[in-house]
Amino acid sequence: MFTRVQVVGHGRLGSAVSARLAERGVVANGPDVDLVILCVPDRVIHEVAESMPTGPWIAHMSGAVPLSALSPHARRFGLHPLQTFTRGGGPGQLDGASAAVTAETEDARERARWLAGCLKLRPFDLQEDKRVLYHAGATMASNFLVTLYRAARQLVEAAGAPPEGLLPLMRRTIDNGFELTGPISRGDWATVEAHLTAIHEDAPDLEELYRAMARATRP
Amino acid sequence: MFTRVQVVGHGRLGSAVSARLAERGVVANGPDVDLVILCVPDRVIHEVAESMPTGPWIAHMSGAVPLSALSPHARRFGLHPLQTFTRGGGPGQLDGASAAVTAETEDARERARWLAGCLKLRPFDLQEDKRVLYHAGATMASNFLVTLYRAARQLVEAAGAPPEGLLPLMRRTIDNGFELTGPISRGDWATVEAHLTAIHEDAPDLEELYRAMARATRP
Repeated sequence: MFTRVQVVGHGRLGSAVSARLAERGVVANGPDVDLVILCVPDRVIHEVAESMPTGPWIAHMSGAVPLSALSPHARRFGLHPLQTFTRGGGPGQLDGASAAVTAETEDARERARWLAGCLKLRPFDLQEDKRVLYHAGATMASNFLVTLYRAARQLVEAAGAPPEGLLPLMRRTIDNGFELTGPISRGDWATVEAHLTAIHEDAPDLEELYRAMARATRP
Repeated sequence: MFTRVQVVGHGRLGSAVSARLAERGVVANGPDVDLVILCVPDRVIHEVAESMPTGPWIAHMSGAVPLSALSPHARRFGLHPLQTFTRGGGPGQLDGASAAVTAETEDARERARWLAGCLKLRPFDLQEDKRVLYHAGATMASNFLVTLYRAARQLVEAAGAPPEGLLPLMRRTIDNGFELTGPISRGDWATVEAHLTAIHEDAPDLEELYRAMARATRP
């Protein structure tokens, strides 16, 4: 479908995408590319898109940015991998991740799906007007998981216990299909109050977070 | 060290502990046991302990309950596995999990460590006056992870996207050592505001949670 694909931006995601396209033999540069993929920060997508010559297809890989940011280009689509990437982690980071396809025409959708397959992503359709809600969910699952871990680690360390024990616990929580156990599942509000007293005393910066999470956990 | 161990309570944890002790050939019942392990709900630990004849050692496996709940027994300790358990998950659920040892004497500590080894847990020492703080951390890491997933799932489903894509994202976030990526790590507050607007519109019950998590994520 595409044979000469240019990647703009070589951060975490752009590097992995470039490496995968190189494996596939379709990475290219120069005036005769047939697809340009923007892997640049959200806030500069529009500016970079405007600076590119029209003609080739153009795509971005942002979760939150609308397709209209790719204007004046009309042959365009979005493909957002539902994954987190590290620098130097290589193309294997893409393998098997889901990816949101946003497209305004059937042609564009087919091309986005082709790119997903080429990158070894698993595409699903996302409506343009739902992308911010979707991206908020992705942010909760990934970025706020970091926050949750940091908070748990702070408490465990403040108690003098080794924080590495939290990892098997968190992995098992996922493996168990997120089955709720613990004090709130047992309606044990005395323990929740005791937690809050201890946090108020030894980690007051986490009090708001604990309260909000406990309220949201309540059946 | 112990050769005849009785387990009281056969819920999620008690069943796994009984099965492991049976594998080790030390599970027992009757008047001549040398250790009784209480795997009963926190709120009845004291009552059950009071009902047991003095003589054998006694232990509980609670995170938050103090050792004094085991009174009038003086030969006592606590061993809390930092893990979540399912019904019918078997003794393998204990393998390699960390476990908090609370003890008032060196003899008690050695016995707790023996039991941890017998159960294939990895013991660490926890001060009695820090156990509630430690348990709050464990609750955040496990129970609130369930809450976080449910919230993310609600948003992704409301956007019409398949929620199963969240699992590889969450696992990779752990595998990547909880490296923070996404809008907040880039200082992209416009995206955070867009998330809040979308949540306010389509999932207002999650607004407080998102705000508290975003505030706690801020560097």
